[in-house]
Amino acid sequence: MNNPTQPFVLTKEFLEIFKNAVESKNDVYVNEITTGLFPADISTLLDEIDADGCKYVLDLLDKDVRADIISDLDPDIRKTFLKIYSPKEIAEFIDYTDSDDAVDILNELPIQLREEAIAYIKDEEKSSHITDLLRYDEDCAGGLMAKEFIAVKIHWTTVQCIEEIRRQAEKVEKIHTIYVVDEQNVLKGRLSVKKLLLSDDKTQIEDIYSQDIIAVYSYDHEEDIANIMQKYDLESVPVINKQRQLLGRITVDDIIDVITELAELNQQAMAGISEDVEEADSVLKLSRARLPWLFIGMVGGLLGAQFMELFEKDLIAVPAMAFFIPLITATGGNVGIQSATLVVQALSGSSIQDTVGQRLFKSLLVALLNGIVIATSVFLMNWLFTMNMKLSLIVAIALFCVVLIASIMGTITPIVLNKAGINPAIASGPFITTANDLVGLAVYFSVARLLYGLA
Amino acid sequence: MNNPTQPFVLTKEFLEIFKNAVESKNDVYVNEITTGLFPADISTLLDEIDADGCKYVLDLLDKDVRADIISDLDPDIRKTFLKIYSPKEIAEFIDYTDSDDAVDILNELPIQLREEAIAYIKDEEKSSHITDLLRYDEDCAGGLMAKEFIAVKIHWTTVQCIEEIRRQAEKVEKIHTIYVVDEQNVLKGRLSVKKLLLSDDKTQIEDIYSQDIIAVYSYDHEEDIANIMQKYDLESVPVINKQRQLLGRITVDDIIDVITELAELNQQAMAGISEDVEEADSVLKLSRARLPWLFIGMVGGLLGAQFMELFEKDLIAVPAMAFFIPLITATGGNVGIQSATLVVQALSGSSIQDTVGQRLFKSLLVALLNGIVIATSVFLMNWLFTMNMKLSLIVAIALFCVVLIASIMGTITPIVLNKAGINPAIASGPFITTANDLVGLAVYFSVARLLYGLA
Repeated sequence: MNNPTQPFVLTKEFLEIFKNAVESKNDVYVNEITTGLFPADISTLLDEIDADGCKYVLDLLDKDVRADIISDLDPDIRKTFLKIYSPKEIAEFIDYTDSDDAVDILNELPIQLREEAIAYIKDEEKSSHITDLLRYDEDCAGGLMAKEFIAVKIHWTTVQCIEEIRRQAEKVEKIHTIYVVDEQNVLKGRLSVKKLLLSDDKTQIEDIYSQDIIAVYSYDHEEDIANIMQKYDLESVPVINKQRQLLGRITVDDIIDVITELAELNQQAMAGISEDVEEADSVLKLSRARLPWLFIGMVGGLLGAQFMELFEKDLIAVPAMAFFIPLITATGGNVGIQSATLVVQALSGSSIQDTVGQRLFKSLLVALLNGIVIATSVFLMNWLFTMNMKLSLIVAIALFCVVLIASIMGTITPIVLNKAGINPAIASGPFITTANDLVGLAVYFSVARLLYGLA
Repeated sequence: MNNPTQPFVLTKEFLEIFKNAVESKNDVYVNEITTGLFPADISTLLDEIDADGCKYVLDLLDKDVRADIISDLDPDIRKTFLKIYSPKEIAEFIDYTDSDDAVDILNELPIQLREEAIAYIKDEEKSSHITDLLRYDEDCAGGLMAKEFIAVKIHWTTVQCIEEIRRQAEKVEKIHTIYVVDEQNVLKGRLSVKKLLLSDDKTQIEDIYSQDIIAVYSYDHEEDIANIMQKYDLESVPVINKQRQLLGRITVDDIIDVITELAELNQQAMAGISEDVEEADSVLKLSRARLPWLFIGMVGGLLGAQFMELFEKDLIAVPAMAFFIPLITATGGNVGIQSATLVVQALSGSSIQDTVGQRLFKSLLVALLNGIVIATSVFLMNWLFTMNMKLSLIVAIALFCVVLIASIMGTITPIVLNKAGINPAIASGPFITTANDLVGLAVYFSVARLLYGLA
């Protein structure tokens, strides 16, 4: 690359050229294409070709570039793809990979292959690091952290510090933070690179390090770590054990992945998709992930039908009542989803939470206001068009009640789910809409019987 | 702080103590409380008290801590709060703030106060930087970047480089990346801190810098920048102009904010909330943000009622037909939202996109499968319970068609919106549900008339 580069954009034409070069096993041409690209761009290309093609391209690359690409691949693609390699070859990748990514890769292997691959890792320090990291859950700090970091002892001088960096240079790709520990490896603070650069050789670390440091425990959950790094604008965070000993570090790029993934899962939960799926997944997997909500909706719809049977006489007396069923159920669903979404977003924020009472009160005020606006508009429009005063009144009153009730349910359901430890986002979808359909029907027909009964 | 600290958790009790200390203007106690806290934690406390209280606390703090806190405040809170300060006082904060945050603060002021505040800024370089940055849109690279970065000339030695860092030390809080430029300030690459630390004094930058660098143009959109930083795992990215001259840098913490904000906006769009609101906003604002979708739903519902009037005779003949209206509309809505959500998520990914045809085909396969499962289940259950073969068949056939149509609409709508430059996430909410309600009714009644008509 001769110039600072704008991000690479993969065009269909470029992809075609690349695919042809791979198929005809044109080493020179493939090399020429990949040399101009960042590992992340080569990854994008490999996402588009089959596993054998990937192996062919990777074997042509430098070992460190290859390791970068493999840790960057989509886990689903990598899984099929690792099958082509022997445990010995996988161990070779891992020699060039940071320990956190190495653990992710190893976790995708069947347990026997995993053990074999670990046995082939040449660097003993690395293989012990990896065995250590494999013990942690994937979604806690221990499962996210890497062992590649620079730690210096508090009683050292800056010269000793630079000596340590030189010693670690090969293993630590980028210096995020220099951690300061005592003789027992207890985290004491951090040393800024700027201070290290600007101090003279004999300066004591003790005199220039900063004690202001945020650390997380190895068992902290990834969502909490994401919140902390976001709140304190951290680029990396040290991971400690109960004795405050330094175990590893988590960098912000891993956390961005966590944030994005959580946002996508929330959206899917809201849409009633029960597994973590992508459009690229198989038809069967996609179908399975969607059916549970469809079934909930189906059962709700059938219960609704059962319920309406109770009011068959009213429907026969006033068939026009049926016309407004979709209006009632849709409005209930819409109001419920709106309320639930705002509560879910507030719940995921980290500021002090309003009490359930305050939430409900405010939600009710908004619902009152919107209920009045919607009910009045519907009443006026219905009356003008149908000149049926009584039915227009029934629909308007039912609509007003439905807006209030749906709003209360949309506010309470996520709070209850959250307290029960269930992802409150699912409340914004399946539960709210199905429940509100039923409640809406009940309200509508009850109001109708009341008003017609009084006549 | 004596020890590496776990993140601060704000309890009601702690907040009460703090509020009392502020109300009684107990300087010593307030100082004691704030000294143990990070700026981000003091921010959290200030979010909970009134503007006068905030001013009182801030005036007690060190100027740099104060500046940190002000750039960290919730923009809504900051806006009311800046009114208490004179332009001269605001200029004083800004002297201690990075230029990107300074611009955010100034953008919240009325134009006249803004000009006055800029005139009071003592540091001439900073005030010219700020005037420069104010020209950019808030949601492009220029509006996100800061002017505080370290740039060194390509023909310098490492000693000159360290000299430059010393010179900039006061202004640049943390060295993210050392950028390498030529005499015309054209970006040539980056210098790793590790290499700088490990090279001897006479080494030429030219010999140790890296040409692999991703840059963004000042007019690039924040969403694209977020994708780029995520893809290449960047902690900061340089911003250049068309001539490739270095203008500024964007750090990952600003981008995390962009990612989170976009995810929240998407969720709200899905839920049919048309403005960027939070639960904490006023009742009126919340109500206004929700009404548009409720109106769309209302109009849809009234159109549905009009439409059903055409089938009044059928309803009188078979009143039980009304029972299944909610089942039909709910299933259409659910299927539509599921399809749309997956397409929206795929559209926001950066990999090569499937063609519209491929998308539709796959979506149809999933819909066929789910349609058969749902329709068969509903048919069997209805038949068992009602023993009404014909109506059970009508409902099942209609349901099957609705699943197929809703799936197609849920797939196409976001693609069309995306091509038209509209946020496709709104498709997952208002449009899909309202449209599917209408289509569902049309299908249901058409199938019914067809089957009953044939009898």
